[in-house]
Amino acid sequence: MASAQVHRIAVIPGDGIGHEVVPAALEALEAVAALDGSFRFAFDRFPWGCDHYLETGRMMPPDGLEQLRGYDAILLGAVGHPSVPDHVSLWGLLLPIRRTFEQYVNLRPVKLLRGVTSPLRGRGPDDIDFVVVRENNEGEYSNAGGRLFAGTPHEIVVQESIFTRRGVERIMRFAFELARRHPKRRLTSATKSNGISYTMPFWDEVFREMAARYPDVATDQFHIDALAARFVTHPHHFGVVVGSNLFGDILTDLGAAIAGSIGIAPSANLNPERQYPSMFEPIHGSAPDIAGKGIANPVGQIWSGAMMLEHLGHPRAGRRLLAAIEHALAERGVKTPDLGGSATTREMTQAIVRSLDEVP
Amino acid sequence: MASAQVHRIAVIPGDGIGHEVVPAALEALEAVAALDGSFRFAFDRFPWGCDHYLETGRMMPPDGLEQLRGYDAILLGAVGHPSVPDHVSLWGLLLPIRRTFEQYVNLRPVKLLRGVTSPLRGRGPDDIDFVVVRENNEGEYSNAGGRLFAGTPHEIVVQESIFTRRGVERIMRFAFELARRHPKRRLTSATKSNGISYTMPFWDEVFREMAARYPDVATDQFHIDALAARFVTHPHHFGVVVGSNLFGDILTDLGAAIAGSIGIAPSANLNPERQYPSMFEPIHGSAPDIAGKGIANPVGQIWSGAMMLEHLGHPRAGRRLLAAIEHALAERGVKTPDLGGSATTREMTQAIVRSLDEVP
Ligand SMILES: CC(C)[C@H](C(=O)O)[C@@H](O)C(=O)O
Ligand SMILES: CC(C)[C@H](C(=O)O)[C@@H](O)C(=O)O
Repeated sequence: MASAQVHRIAVIPGDGIGHEVVPAALEALEAVAALDGSFRFAFDRFPWGCDHYLETGRMMPPDGLEQLRGYDAILLGAVGHPSVPDHVSLWGLLLPIRRTFEQYVNLRPVKLLRGVTSPLRGRGPDDIDFVVVRENNEGEYSNAGGRLFAGTPHEIVVQESIFTRRGVERIMRFAFELARRHPKRRLTSATKSNGISYTMPFWDEVFREMAARYPDVATDQFHIDALAARFVTHPHHFGVVVGSNLFGDILTDLGAAIAGSIGIAPSANLNPERQYPSMFEPIHGSAPDIAGKGIANPVGQIWSGAMMLEHLGHPRAGRRLLAAIEHALAERGVKTPDLGGSATTREMTQAIVRSLDEVP
Repeated sequence: MASAQVHRIAVIPGDGIGHEVVPAALEALEAVAALDGSFRFAFDRFPWGCDHYLETGRMMPPDGLEQLRGYDAILLGAVGHPSVPDHVSLWGLLLPIRRTFEQYVNLRPVKLLRGVTSPLRGRGPDDIDFVVVRENNEGEYSNAGGRLFAGTPHEIVVQESIFTRRGVERIMRFAFELARRHPKRRLTSATKSNGISYTMPFWDEVFREMAARYPDVATDQFHIDALAARFVTHPHHFGVVVGSNLFGDILTDLGAAIAGSIGIAPSANLNPERQYPSMFEPIHGSAPDIAGKGIANPVGQIWSGAMMLEHLGHPRAGRRLLAAIEHALAERGVKTPDLGGSATTREMTQAIVRSLDEVP
């Protein structure tokens, strides 16, 4: 037997339920690799996050990014803890990784799995199946800004949103390429050019320019308020949706909700040029309210692992893992409490691993 | 009989379906006034909007705001037309009115009316009944910003979000006062302080400071992404929700969607100090796709009129008009196409006017 290809993965469980769902994903990934036989994983764990911050005053060591740089991919759990301000925890770990490694695409499927009930009346898996492409490096998330007259009644706080031609063009190009391969061949852009008068008209301009180069892709655009409403009223409309950092963030949590549970939704932070490692993480947060109880839904993390498999060149193995998730939910009926079931993280994970044998 | 009090109202139908739903609201308002007997209306119409722009290059005359200043209230339809860029039409009419007249509160009920079906599975009128208080004067909607290196590959576009202590304190105070009188006594704040690192932590600070002064109000906060998801998964959770200009905008369109139709939702742009006229308008836009067909849902506009009645000191008449809307929808079963019926704007309006006789 030829020796298997080895993928070196940096694993950052992070905080809260990250410590429960990440081991679940590693178990599922090992199982897929064992069945496939053509590759295996070498996982290195990094104990970074809010505990590390409370001990050291930093979310990761000063050379943290250097330590990660050589890996084939990063698997992240969730970041955030009630005793650390969110803007500290996120700007100290998650956001620098996304930016330093130019993971400018945040790819987030919105897909109702079989066996899961959507909160939308009368909607089934055929109605909710699209992809959101979120700009992941610039835009409204910025640490540029400041305060004037702090602590006085005249206090003024300013925050800059910064959009660059390079940044908007590359995300649009990725989205159009994806839409071209999507069964619906439709790309919908999220804007707010009626209220936000510099950056959003620019976003629309680049969208229009790019659309001219992809005449085979149908396009439309909605203001973010109307678009959020449309996720609820017309989910079947969408093929690929492209949005800025903030709008993509809002739409994908909403997307996770209409697809049945925030605990299910996966995401891939991609550096499409593969100069740097890409990162895979569920959409959900660290969920301090249920952390340590063993009831967190591991599906979002495991599905993120399936996206990682695809990125690493194993699309068949990725599809198989997703099929196993769906089999466990639909055919075995195993569900965690967020889905109305009573399975533990462990039971859900085992059901998925066992289902691997029963799917193509 | 004592002579009736006269309310002078500036009426701006605006664009698109504004021309259809505004006359409907005037008819309903006249009918309520006639039944009540203690007041009547003097409506002055202003033909401002995109047609005016296409003729004159301006959305309203140079002294437009001066013309409006002396009115008791403004009733607005909708603004926007495909041949005028949105940031031109909105910054030329709607947004200057909101700002010049310090209508810093945008009050938007999210209420599922009897007779209307929510797109959320299993949710009825008891589950969806809350109020969003949207900051309406500053924040993310700003015309401060600019472009560098325009037209080159190095183009950079910057937009400023600007939050002031005065602005945030006054909207928080209004929201806490409202929450104190709300049956749930709960105020939920929309934030995004994990990604947006100056303005949103400031928003949270003021929220915390104000909460200390209202110990009788239960408070919580969610990041806007999680909050949008929660509108879908836990609508019954909410009493009063407070959000910035952009977040309030997104949440209220989403709120309109879960409450059955964007065509139903009303809003009040309030200057609580009553130094300037307040403005009442539906949440929906000018809907060019259905304009001129006579099928627009007039409920959002008429309900906005009911909010105007309350503001003008006639809360009983306002409640009566809302009860008539609900009676027409639930008892008469009259519904426009957006609600799954086939009534025209005219038929829906008549059903509401006739229902006025049958409600207290
Ligand atoms: C038309 C637009 C500028 C406006 C807004 O975003 O304020 C509208 O969406 C609203 O909610 O009243
Ligand atoms: C934690 C937070 C900064 C993050 C984001 O908004 O990007 C999260 O919500 C996400 O969607 O990955």
